[in-house]
Amino acid sequence: MKIKTVSGVIALICLVVSCAMIPSLLIALYDGSKDSSAFALSMFTGFNICLFLRIYSKGFYSSIGIREGVGITGFSWIAASLLGALPYYFSGYVSYTDAFFETMSGFTTTGATIMTDIEALPRGILLWRSLTHWMGGMGIIVLSLAVLPFLGVSGMEMYKAEVPGVTAEKLTPRLHQTAIYLWGVYVALTLIETVLLFSGGMNLFDAFAHSCSTIATGGFSTKNNSIAYFTSPFIQWVIIIFMFASGVNFSLYFLILNKRFREFLADEEFKLYLFITVIAALAMSIALYFAGAFQGIEHTLRRTFFHVVSVMTTTGFIVEDYNLWPELTKFIFVLLMFIGASGGSTGGGCKVSRFIIIGRQLKLEIWRLLHPRAVLTARLNGRPISKSTMDSSAAFFVLYMIILAGATLITTAFGIELLTAFTGVVTCLSNVGPGLNALGPVENFAWLPSFVKWLFSFCMLAGRLELFAVLLLFVPGTYKK
Amino acid sequence: MKIKTVSGVIALICLVVSCAMIPSLLIALYDGSKDSSAFALSMFTGFNICLFLRIYSKGFYSSIGIREGVGITGFSWIAASLLGALPYYFSGYVSYTDAFFETMSGFTTTGATIMTDIEALPRGILLWRSLTHWMGGMGIIVLSLAVLPFLGVSGMEMYKAEVPGVTAEKLTPRLHQTAIYLWGVYVALTLIETVLLFSGGMNLFDAFAHSCSTIATGGFSTKNNSIAYFTSPFIQWVIIIFMFASGVNFSLYFLILNKRFREFLADEEFKLYLFITVIAALAMSIALYFAGAFQGIEHTLRRTFFHVVSVMTTTGFIVEDYNLWPELTKFIFVLLMFIGASGGSTGGGCKVSRFIIIGRQLKLEIWRLLHPRAVLTARLNGRPISKSTMDSSAAFFVLYMIILAGATLITTAFGIELLTAFTGVVTCLSNVGPGLNALGPVENFAWLPSFVKWLFSFCMLAGRLELFAVLLLFVPGTYKK
Repeated sequence: MKIKTVSGVIALICLVVSCAMIPSLLIALYDGSKDSSAFALSMFTGFNICLFLRIYSKGFYSSIGIREGVGITGFSWIAASLLGALPYYFSGYVSYTDAFFETMSGFTTTGATIMTDIEALPRGILLWRSLTHWMGGMGIIVLSLAVLPFLGVSGMEMYKAEVPGVTAEKLTPRLHQTAIYLWGVYVALTLIETVLLFSGGMNLFDAFAHSCSTIATGGFSTKNNSIAYFTSPFIQWVIIIFMFASGVNFSLYFLILNKRFREFLADEEFKLYLFITVIAALAMSIALYFAGAFQGIEHTLRRTFFHVVSVMTTTGFIVEDYNLWPELTKFIFVLLMFIGASGGSTGGGCKVSRFIIIGRQLKLEIWRLLHPRAVLTARLNGRPISKSTMDSSAAFFVLYMIILAGATLITTAFGIELLTAFTGVVTCLSNVGPGLNALGPVENFAWLPSFVKWLFSFCMLAGRLELFAVLLLFVPGTYKK
Repeated sequence: MKIKTVSGVIALICLVVSCAMIPSLLIALYDGSKDSSAFALSMFTGFNICLFLRIYSKGFYSSIGIREGVGITGFSWIAASLLGALPYYFSGYVSYTDAFFETMSGFTTTGATIMTDIEALPRGILLWRSLTHWMGGMGIIVLSLAVLPFLGVSGMEMYKAEVPGVTAEKLTPRLHQTAIYLWGVYVALTLIETVLLFSGGMNLFDAFAHSCSTIATGGFSTKNNSIAYFTSPFIQWVIIIFMFASGVNFSLYFLILNKRFREFLADEEFKLYLFITVIAALAMSIALYFAGAFQGIEHTLRRTFFHVVSVMTTTGFIVEDYNLWPELTKFIFVLLMFIGASGGSTGGGCKVSRFIIIGRQLKLEIWRLLHPRAVLTARLNGRPISKSTMDSSAAFFVLYMIILAGATLITTAFGIELLTAFTGVVTCLSNVGPGLNALGPVENFAWLPSFVKWLFSFCMLAGRLELFAVLLLFVPGTYKK
């Protein structure tokens, strides 16, 4: 790994994060709240780190190999979180551990919070929480893809590590164009949702903050009760639709822009994603009906669709404490957390496309038992799935389970109840937000021991960077020249 | 699938099961208990079914292909359980659903019971419970391997479906000899344990019944409190050692008989199996110490080693209600259930060898990310692991998870608490016996709804037959000619 190349990019990341604090600083100054100095101090620190790294990495415009791609991907998220945690810390609300947890939760679009009274926070801090989501959403690095090519740095490896579901063939061929296009869709969705929420009765600040959280599939809200605060069915349905839209592979919007609707609807991942959403919501509606919690068709469908979409897209907004729902629905939530959204979306989890690939692989394996000598190929959207794609999907699944088991083991060692620990790890690994029991939808993560907070921060990062990118940081071979 | 070939073998299975009822019939007659007529009626039914199938399948001495192997494997276990359930049913203790559950639990060496008062049962029934374990242990079919070759039926395919860890190269080359040798080790271990338990103060009946359960890694006891009834440390340590021995790949005993001790100790699966056992028991001892439940070194090590070995070998004997132990130990138990014993042993679960293979595969996958063009091979005990072995190990893991998720989903739909449902399915899929919470070590399965009992019976069978053999029964292609 060429350290200078990596630190050169990290310098840029620090610059971007510091600049992103400007709106929060301005709103803090406007409100005259005490967090303005915290933002100023954080930005000052950020610019200095950037300057230091920039001087250190002088002449870094070399090509990026696999090792540099891995280093940039992993370390830029860590650096952004270390720096982004400063405003929370400097304003004195929380310890640095908690500040880091909150920021990592923001940049990884998890939405798990250690804040116990969100409505008591000043608007500058609230905006910063939402902006960490928004930047994290498409990936600080995918954002930076529009910048890096100008510097002669080809970022295909990073891109691979970042958004696995997007294949080059589906988008415009040139990476720079691709990044700008993705960014455009992202901005457009955010603005449209802001307008709709505003027209539904939210004030502009809340509308923008919740749009950032929605499109990034984050989950931070400006209210203690999350979306339950906004009782308007219109607002809740708007959020359902935009959460769902953010869980779709963004490269598919390219098809819509080109009026290739038939191809859009024929996409196998989209079809399964839609199918799971509908089936899960209907199953939950029926379970609620039998549990005697039925309150009209629209209301029942709204609450089930809201939570199914919220959990499956790994957003984590809530309108109700589903920890009190029937056991079946709780287990469906755990499964949805695990499955996650589509590849190439802002959502987390294992991704629907991986399940399609693993399912096809399993079918092949069964077929092979009956026809040992046959040569067989599995396909996705008509194209053959390569052996290496199949292998890496299965490996991802196994690695997810290993990290899940290991992290749960450590968490229970702190005396935390089994289901709380297990769903806490799943919700962090899949970047959802709430878990079950003592980490359920109406609880928060403040009570966890410090060590567990760092562990969960690691899980959030590992999940967001598709496990392997983070795992490679622990492999000595990554640091070879 | 040649139906006549399959039913010809099923006829033999019915004959074996019926004849195996003779000792129970004799002891029932000796005790003058009312279950003697139940055994007589069951045997009469069994002989008739055997006769009917024998006539139907006249001239079945044809060769066995993959499809027939699958059919024989799956249907013989189902037939044996359907027939073996009759004594419980005819003696009027339980419904047929419960009787089938108990028998499937016996033949699959699971040890989950629906009996609420075991000590109230007559000795004939108790002996039958233990014998179903003992016959199931090495597989009714592996037993039959010594018979089938005489009929000109080569059973290599079945053998593959039955004991995946035993590779032909490790044992004597001829299958018939192999079966006799395995059977010899099995009988010898049972007799040695019986003598030791008897010398430790058990009566002969209990000693034999518990030996059958131990060597088969079953878990049925003749006492309501399982091994907790026998407070002697000597008896408990004997059972620990024999449970551990039954979780070892039986083909390794071939090495011991040939005085190749170094090869035995160098076996990678054995080393990991031993390592996990020791680490888990020590971790639990420490957890118990910190939970203030430490009662002397020997006692603490005995209770932790007992339960670690009991759960990991999927036996399911208990000396204590570990549902009351710390959260960490409970999660370790879930992991041990999932991992299971060695391949080629009488234990269930995913098997230690599969985890070695999956681990090596993951290492390859990570290595490949850094060296995309390198050609790499993973090895087990010095021999390269073939691509198809790796694929099938990963597929097994995925299939286990899918069945686990599906069965838990159905179970929670009956309103059963999440962790109870989840561990209930795991314990059945891995053929352990007890789960956690309402299906914990001191509970039983009697309270479950009928449908869930049939579902759990299916899980026990699926787990015992390494998932794929049962799954293939649902694939139409299996029944093609």
